[in-house]
Amino acid sequence: MEPIKHIGIREGMKVSKLVEGMRDIGFGASKIGKISEIVLEMFKDKECKVFLGVAGAMVPAGMRNILMDLLGEVDVFVTTGANLTHDLIESLGEKHYKGSEKQDDSELNKMGIDRIYNVFMKKEVYHHLESFFEKNWEEFENCNNIKEFLWKIGELTGKGILGKCWEKKIPVFCPAIADSGIGLMVWGRLAEGKKIKIDAFDDMKEIIDLAWTAEKRGIIYVGGGVPKNFIQQALQFSKGADYGIQITTDHPESGGSSGALLKEGISWGKMKKQGKYANVICDATIALPLVLGYIKDKIKED
Amino acid sequence: MEPIKHIGIREGMKVSKLVEGMRDIGFGASKIGKISEIVLEMFKDKECKVFLGVAGAMVPAGMRNILMDLLGEVDVFVTTGANLTHDLIESLGEKHYKGSEKQDDSELNKMGIDRIYNVFMKKEVYHHLESFFEKNWEEFENCNNIKEFLWKIGELTGKGILGKCWEKKIPVFCPAIADSGIGLMVWGRLAEGKKIKIDAFDDMKEIIDLAWTAEKRGIIYVGGGVPKNFIQQALQFSKGADYGIQITTDHPESGGSSGALLKEGISWGKMKKQGKYANVICDATIALPLVLGYIKDKIKED
Amino acid sequence: MEPIKHIGIREGMKVSKLVEGMRDIGFGASKIGKISEIVLEMFKDKECKVFLGVAGAMVPAGMRNILMDLLGEVDVFVTTGANLTHDLIESLGEKHYKGSEKQDDSELNKMGIDRIYNVFMKKEVYHHLESFFEKNWEEFENCNNIKEFLWKIGELTGKGILGKCWEKKIPVFCPAIADSGIGLMVWGRLAEGKKIKIDAFDDMKEIIDLAWTAEKRGIIYVGGGVPKNFIQQALQFSKGADYGIQITTDHPESGGSSGALLKEGISWGKMKKQGKYANVICDATIALPLVLGYIKDKIKED
Amino acid sequence: MEPIKHIGIREGMKVSKLVEGMRDIGFGASKIGKISEIVLEMFKDKECKVFLGVAGAMVPAGMRNILMDLLGEVDVFVTTGANLTHDLIESLGEKHYKGSEKQDDSELNKMGIDRIYNVFMKKEVYHHLESFFEKNWEEFENCNNIKEFLWKIGELTGKGILGKCWEKKIPVFCPAIADSGIGLMVWGRLAEGKKIKIDAFDDMKEIIDLAWTAEKRGIIYVGGGVPKNFIQQALQFSKGADYGIQITTDHPESGGSSGALLKEGISWGKMKKQGKYANVICDATIALPLVLGYIKDKIKED
Repeated sequence: MEPIKHIGIREGMKVSKLVEGMRDIGFGASKIGKISEIVLEMFKDKECKVFLGVAGAMVPAGMRNILMDLLGEVDVFVTTGANLTHDLIESLGEKHYKGSEKQDDSELNKMGIDRIYNVFMKKEVYHHLESFFEKNWEEFENCNNIKEFLWKIGELTGKGILGKCWEKKIPVFCPAIADSGIGLMVWGRLAEGKKIKIDAFDDMKEIIDLAWTAEKRGIIYVGGGVPKNFIQQALQFSKGADYGIQITTDHPESGGSSGALLKEGISWGKMKKQGKYANVICDATIALPLVLGYIKDKIKED
Repeated sequence: MEPIKHIGIREGMKVSKLVEGMRDIGFGASKIGKISEIVLEMFKDKECKVFLGVAGAMVPAGMRNILMDLLGEVDVFVTTGANLTHDLIESLGEKHYKGSEKQDDSELNKMGIDRIYNVFMKKEVYHHLESFFEKNWEEFENCNNIKEFLWKIGELTGKGILGKCWEKKIPVFCPAIADSGIGLMVWGRLAEGKKIKIDAFDDMKEIIDLAWTAEKRGIIYVGGGVPKNFIQQALQFSKGADYGIQITTDHPESGGSSGALLKEGISWGKMKKQGKYANVICDATIALPLVLGYIKDKIKED
Repeated sequence: MEPIKHIGIREGMKVSKLVEGMRDIGFGASKIGKISEIVLEMFKDKECKVFLGVAGAMVPAGMRNILMDLLGEVDVFVTTGANLTHDLIESLGEKHYKGSEKQDDSELNKMGIDRIYNVFMKKEVYHHLESFFEKNWEEFENCNNIKEFLWKIGELTGKGILGKCWEKKIPVFCPAIADSGIGLMVWGRLAEGKKIKIDAFDDMKEIIDLAWTAEKRGIIYVGGGVPKNFIQQALQFSKGADYGIQITTDHPESGGSSGALLKEGISWGKMKKQGKYANVICDATIALPLVLGYIKDKIKED
Repeated sequence: MEPIKHIGIREGMKVSKLVEGMRDIGFGASKIGKISEIVLEMFKDKECKVFLGVAGAMVPAGMRNILMDLLGEVDVFVTTGANLTHDLIESLGEKHYKGSEKQDDSELNKMGIDRIYNVFMKKEVYHHLESFFEKNWEEFENCNNIKEFLWKIGELTGKGILGKCWEKKIPVFCPAIADSGIGLMVWGRLAEGKKIKIDAFDDMKEIIDLAWTAEKRGIIYVGGGVPKNFIQQALQFSKGADYGIQITTDHPESGGSSGALLKEGISWGKMKKQGKYANVICDATIALPLVLGYIKDKIKED
């Protein structure tokens, strides 16, 4: 048995040292240490294809740069339409704002502000979205699946998460794209009589192929939801994940996929019995910066 | 101020009496009382179109009959592919089983059992799913959107949730249908070279119309996720919901849509400022039976 | 494997039937079913001494009658000073009120109202507490430990939880009594120069004896905290609990005693390896009425 | 409105820079930023008396050094008997060990190991505790209240948290001291016929005086429980706290004191309406190191 080494905080301490210290203690901190090590290991393993699934409003919350950093290391990205809409909003020059969950919502409504917990967004962003899709609609008419549609957005803006996915040819999936501001923009054009032909099932072929053909598979889940489940489903057609970490505030006992511990995936054949995996129950805006701080310092070491 | 009336439990007490007692006390119980009252009110209001959004593995958990009962009162249903897959599995004669979250997952895997927290399912259910879609594939080839595809399943089985949606012509939406066992069955057929043309965005027109044209709108959210968000999005194109209740184990502070309090929707214009709404943080398998027990006894009273 | 029997809600359904139905499904509902069965079993087992530990502001929330009903079946009671203070407040004729967590706290303060989440209490209750202790102070001067002090309150009021503990001679422990409104009343008298001699450790002898001498031990924990921990500690000097249930909204991963699963107690020797125990993550104001509704109907059956 | 500045992680980044970055984004991270700023401000305010309340098994988890660092800045300390017992265990030369919550508890019991979530402790530590109290019993016989008793332990060991409290004459309170391993040691001596006279209420005078006489008051709550409540109660006899932060995994809706937002204290007069306060829902083993990393770098700046 390895003794708990009480964590010591020093002046000028680096984030990576802090995370190393967390690894040597107990409770949630030890999970932060463990997930950081597993992420490092899957990034360093050249045989490992890494699948990143991100739910939750991470872009409005200020995690856009961190997600873009992670996209430098991952092979497949699955997220929600909300995150991609908010990414596009920023690519079009708009911003999100620091707000408060205590603000009166009907006052905010009058002021033209949408609230996402303690983040605010001006309703006028929708005009920019409208213009973008109106101006570029013809570009989308030849897209056959959601990935092509999303890559096209990235190609057109050349910025942000979708810009990076396009530039680095990272497959980006979003099964519930209709359920987002981007979906609304498409609906708006359809209502004007314009056409588009995006197949609801077509992307499945690619993600299942990606899982099937990988030597090894690593998974990083932020927040559960459809992104987690869509990757898990693809893993069912593989030998299972070799590495896996999950950051969520959901708990297993309500029975949903979002809070299910990764080991549940072993019964399904989505995780390998001997895979390395860890779960941490933590707000991702707190946990992800710690993990990335560790990765940044350690990725270049042998 | 109304005094707390300490709840008294009597022999042979009815569920509806219990819920009435909960209404008169504090903490979570009072929320159970309040959501029950609001659901009753929206069901009794003939001008109100009710939108039910259900995430979480409610069918495996044993909530299928309760959902079918609710479908007797609601006008629009949005859920996850998982719930519809498990509904279809039962319609095809298979079952879910009482299990335990403590069971060893690699043992379960060897025994051919998939685990969903404390519920088990035999992997052999997939054979029934395969047969069903192989046998009936031609029927699906003319479906143009996800709702038509799901109604077709209901028409073919004549059973369960989808059977009821078909029979009663309840619009049923599932934006992330690809992310489910049903999605996998479609993928399997596509891999065999068969064709299908389900548009990813087409259902948006109908759900937004349904929200737009309603005199009043009521919302019932179980578990957040895409079902909640897809309905919320449609409400943005209406005057906002008049009634709303939410049952979830998620909390607002992680910033996701699933845990957001309903009042956040006021800033977006999805909820009316003066709407009646309440949130309860509770496992839906505990809260929903209480709500329905109340409704069953009260719905026939004037 | 036993199939999930989808729960069916019928008009006029009894609470006990609902709980039986919950037992046959999954997720949290099955835990409500299981804890209800275990509580029934420990109440029916004549060799079993039952220890009830209650934290959380259950009395302000409206659970006073339910706790008094439980006191009809349990042998030892441990709770917080807050619950006993609020019990005394009601015994002195004052009330708690239905409030809202959204109310402005500085407005409430001006109105003379203390808030406990969505329950309100008038600050004037403190005058009644003051009078009670001033008038009866001499009665307390001969109490040597916290239990005697609490029984004396029960003897003087003849009402409520403490009245029942005194009347039925149920040992009632409250290690952190100083941390409560009752503690403040004692402090007030001490500040006036009055004397009292309550030993901080004396009650340990009795509770450890009670655990030690029991044939079998059953535990019911509502909300963790000192009440749970004080009973757990006493069990360490026994062969361990034979039955145990826990109702809490705390989770194990933060490492506190309140959220620790009962099985953790097996490592400490506080629970028997083969004991019957179950945990449910649920608001106690929702779970306790369900459990008691089941018990009331079942306790008289053979 | 201030825009969200997407947090950027750089190689070799300092913890204090990370926390500054968190302050400028949303969701939980912004709360980490905010509590860090408030703690810094209360530490720098020379008129402010700081009350630190710590519940949860922070010492076994590896937070002992961090708590000792905090004791360099705070004026009053309230904690659980468990934390003080585990502090004493380490002062006597014993250790805690990294373990796993998945380990079989009956195996651990056979191996002589007690489990605290994912931390292990050898049962043999109790022998050291026994020897310590047997050898030094006479020293405790003149202690009149819990603070004197705890200071005496600190004087005798000259180490750890209690050693520091004694050395720096920091008042340390623990109302439920009976509910702990230290309590058991006292019980053991009482069972041998030895005597001690520790009054259950006596410490109230000092903590209420400390709150009353302070120019300003700052509060730091880790984990709720009796430590939080005992400080809150003392504040009721002051003009209310000027600064306050709370780190907990509890939520307000279950109605307990541990999860209550600090603003609830405004209704009670425990917090000032215009006080600076913030709550973060986070595992304290993750949040506290971040806060302290910020403080260490910032405390010396003007």
